Amino acid sequence: MSTYTVADYLLDRLAESGVRHLFGVPGDFTLAFLDHVERHPLIEWVGCANELGAGYAADGYARLHGLGALSTTFGVGELSAISAVAGSFAEHVPVLHVVGAPTTAVQAAGRASHHSLGDGDFGHFARMTAEVTAAHEVLSATDATTQIDRVLAEVRHRRLPGYLLIPADVSEAPASPPAAALPAPDVVTDPAVLARFRDALGARLEVADSVSVLADILVARLSAEPSLHRVLAQGVPHASLLWGRRVVDESAPAYLGSYLGAASAPAVRDGIETADLLVMAGVQFTDLTSGFFSQRIDPARTVEIRGEHTRVGDDDFRPLAMRDALDAVADALAAQGDRFRAPAVDGVPAAREPLDPSATLSQTALWREIAGFLRDGDTVLADQGTSFYGMAGERLPHGVVFGGQPLWAAIGFTLPAILGAALARPERRPVLLIGDGAAQLTVGELGTLVRQGIPAVIVVVDNAGYTVERVIHGLHERYNDIATWDWTALLAAMDPAGTSVGVRVDTVGALTEALATARSATGLTLVQAVVPSDDVPPVLADLASAAAAANRRA
Amino acid sequence: MSTYTVADYLLDRLAESGVRHLFGVPGDFTLAFLDHVERHPLIEWVGCANELGAGYAADGYARLHGLGALSTTFGVGELSAISAVAGSFAEHVPVLHVVGAPTTAVQAAGRASHHSLGDGDFGHFARMTAEVTAAHEVLSATDATTQIDRVLAEVRHRRLPGYLLIPADVSEAPASPPAAALPAPDVVTDPAVLARFRDALGARLEVADSVSVLADILVARLSAEPSLHRVLAQGVPHASLLWGRRVVDESAPAYLGSYLGAASAPAVRDGIETADLLVMAGVQFTDLTSGFFSQRIDPARTVEIRGEHTRVGDDDFRPLAMRDALDAVADALAAQGDRFRAPAVDGVPAAREPLDPSATLSQTALWREIAGFLRDGDTVLADQGTSFYGMAGERLPHGVVFGGQPLWAAIGFTLPAILGAALARPERRPVLLIGDGAAQLTVGELGTLVRQGIPAVIVVVDNAGYTVERVIHGLHERYNDIATWDWTALLAAMDPAGTSVGVRVDTVGALTEALATARSATGLTLVQAVVPSDDVPPVLADLASAAAAANRRA
Repeated sequence: MSTYTVADYLLDRLAESGVRHLFGVPGDFTLAFLDHVERHPLIEWVGCANELGAGYAADGYARLHGLGALSTTFGVGELSAISAVAGSFAEHVPVLHVVGAPTTAVQAAGRASHHSLGDGDFGHFARMTAEVTAAHEVLSATDATTQIDRVLAEVRHRRLPGYLLIPADVSEAPASPPAAALPAPDVVTDPAVLARFRDALGARLEVADSVSVLADILVARLSAEPSLHRVLAQGVPHASLLWGRRVVDESAPAYLGSYLGAASAPAVRDGIETADLLVMAGVQFTDLTSGFFSQRIDPARTVEIRGEHTRVGDDDFRPLAMRDALDAVADALAAQGDRFRAPAVDGVPAAREPLDPSATLSQTALWREIAGFLRDGDTVLADQGTSFYGMAGERLPHGVVFGGQPLWAAIGFTLPAILGAALARPERRPVLLIGDGAAQLTVGELGTLVRQGIPAVIVVVDNAGYTVERVIHGLHERYNDIATWDWTALLAAMDPAGTSVGVRVDTVGALTEALATARSATGLTLVQAVVPSDDVPPVLADLASAAAAANRRA
Repeated sequence: MSTYTVADYLLDRLAESGVRHLFGVPGDFTLAFLDHVERHPLIEWVGCANELGAGYAADGYARLHGLGALSTTFGVGELSAISAVAGSFAEHVPVLHVVGAPTTAVQAAGRASHHSLGDGDFGHFARMTAEVTAAHEVLSATDATTQIDRVLAEVRHRRLPGYLLIPADVSEAPASPPAAALPAPDVVTDPAVLARFRDALGARLEVADSVSVLADILVARLSAEPSLHRVLAQGVPHASLLWGRRVVDESAPAYLGSYLGAASAPAVRDGIETADLLVMAGVQFTDLTSGFFSQRIDPARTVEIRGEHTRVGDDDFRPLAMRDALDAVADALAAQGDRFRAPAVDGVPAAREPLDPSATLSQTALWREIAGFLRDGDTVLADQGTSFYGMAGERLPHGVVFGGQPLWAAIGFTLPAILGAALARPERRPVLLIGDGAAQLTVGELGTLVRQGIPAVIVVVDNAGYTVERVIHGLHERYNDIATWDWTALLAAMDPAGTSVGVRVDTVGALTEALATARSATGLTLVQAVVPSDDVPPVLADLASAAAAANRRA
């Protein structure tokens, strides 16, 4: 096995792109490929409980690391992960899905091979995947390295998932190592376009009385955060959408809050919608992040910075990379001195009423306590439900990377995703906030977190059902109930070595104590936080009625 | 809500087709539809831990009941179940997948709706599903009932899955109840063709010295078992493929054993391959059921009965329904008297060496003890791995329905499938045989089994990994290891009310005792059966080397 093969080439290309962990579930069509993974000096195999979990983990890894990868087997494996891949597509997360397939000869014979539909057509699954990937290839022995490079370049450039189907024999076909690194993915800015943009921007700023900034997730996906932070360092009032909380520092004095269209706090709505000039960076409005498209943004007063171009009113500037556009905004604001700086605040947040430790735990108390628990350097993933919207009402400390999945909105996503995020950035403390109904969808990866020794703090919101659905429709309907599980006992069952701690809390005081203990824990901590089943964070209540109304409209 | 709507029409059509349970996970696009389910007099909602589990449960239900149904939400939900639907397609299981979608208006607006890819194209998922369903429709308010009837008729006739996408507003659109029942799905036999077939068959039998029968799963899918049993009652030697064990009575004197091509026991291979005339009923050779296509069947000496036609040597008789062809065979054999009857056996099975109760549990002892535990009326699902192949070496008692998934071969499938199978036929005792690695893929539905009060006997083969993969490749490789779980503690965590019993065994005596206790249990019993990680049933060892060889061939 000393020959360099297509499998080695692919792994070297992944390693060159920064990948250090490959998530997945083995299958007999991938086993020989996995031998190469085991022998690779830089890439570690992370076996998951199931393929959907592996796909979510690879997505979580990519969100923190820039690129993720997963390996599954033909048919059964890849289709079990395809919803995760679709989520990566929706949310602009670059993940490479590597699928092991029957050999070229078996496929050519067209026989009823296991993991196929038995109809001799081995192309079904690649065609399905084409709907949710930016690039896909079925590798051939003669052309494999070119195909790998094409798909990987697309994935890196477009920040979207890609797919490689590797017949077992092609994986073992001889190949030559890469001769040179793949070109760095970047948009080339036309200097003349940039100069015209600078002029247009300067002219707008000259006549503006106020400037605000609204930023969203695409800034992170395009790695343009340093440039955005140069803009925000000018002290202009700014907000983010809930999708893009991680791109701003919510502890900054000029931070207004989260913008959610009509569901925003009045000061946030006012600060964004009435500015003379609004700089929007990487914003994509979705129903759940815009209060069901209730944003009131006047394009005539907006500088809209996107990945490869920027609009100023009716004028389009392209090609213009997001980071160059943002740097130009930072320069232009600096040239205006303090004219657009937000009024100074005294820096001391208003003191909140202390909570009664003996009080029954409520959603409000839960999220407030958790916000107080967070610290610089945490990675926080909040599942799409009461967790994501509960945290919407809380400001995050400096240096927290906060994530959710408000467009694809797959409940259960964050449990495997925190595994990937934790492995991607082990220096950050992983914090997972998830409802009990959601956690049931992907519970298997709780075992993987334990197996991998991830020192996560996991808060399972135990409210006996799908509360996010209850408030949209069917508050007391049986279909929104779930099976009753003892989450602390479940953790213990998945951790026979006893490296983790599980605790159930139903009062404010018990939660405070559990979080204090978690702060000094070296292993995984799971807090089962019991709250009433019909208690709902205010932001979610607003959005839920908008969702219900949308579902009634014909 | 007294108006009769499209949702009611669909549910009435499902009920008319025999469906009494609808499996799924709610989502905000399905909630209004689920109100109709809650109000329906005949159909019960079975909420599952996740969509893949719901899909497998609906498949297990259909295998015992003739038709299954599942309900998921747009995008995230349906794609999480799509691997289960593909498995239903591969294995000829009729399941209707009902997906709740954003309203017609939201789709027409093309906005970034949650659970979509955000690109305004709401057709991605229906196109993906088209690859793995026999019929699909996106319902429109004006045409919905016709569309429902078309898809349901196809599903029932072709015994393959179908897909209905229901925008939330269409679900609530007024409709009229069905005026008449859907026509029964059946192949119309041409009487002249049948007469010619009878003649051809009679001529063949006249000159034959021996006749054998080989039956497989399609006999069950086409509900032709009574006709097959009429044939077998003539006492001809017969075998089934492992896929089709359920269609024969393995306690019958003329039953030869399971036929697996070159991996068959010599007497089985001889009895099938050397017969003067071989009647094959509903046989589909797949790699894992044919010893990688090592069957030696001479078409010139074969009567091959398929769903809608039969071949006798080079002559094709169509249209000819399977049950009519089988009835003709039964009549023709009866007309020949006892000429083809298998030699009488004394009826007393050879006594086996008693096992030493203090011996460490092995795969051989495990399957032998379990075979001894089974009784008339059990439904047994064996997961694709050591369970399915371990049981291949054991004869099943009369009246056992045995199932697995050897073509799609999704490990973990049987855990949710036993939920569906148990609800479909509550009078049968559900027995699940599954490996620990496989059970980790779908563990959430263990909670659903408890929640539904299913009195299943579950044997989890605890051998610390994917043993079926180990024997194909990577016996001691880390990628075939899994997380270590305490399965009895896990069951307890999912059963706070304590209605179930979990026990861990690692000797023959402890297993015997656990099974004896299970016999009288009223709730669910889980036996965690510890066996060495490299211990493999003999049938699986043979097949694994064939699989490994196939994966090496270019």
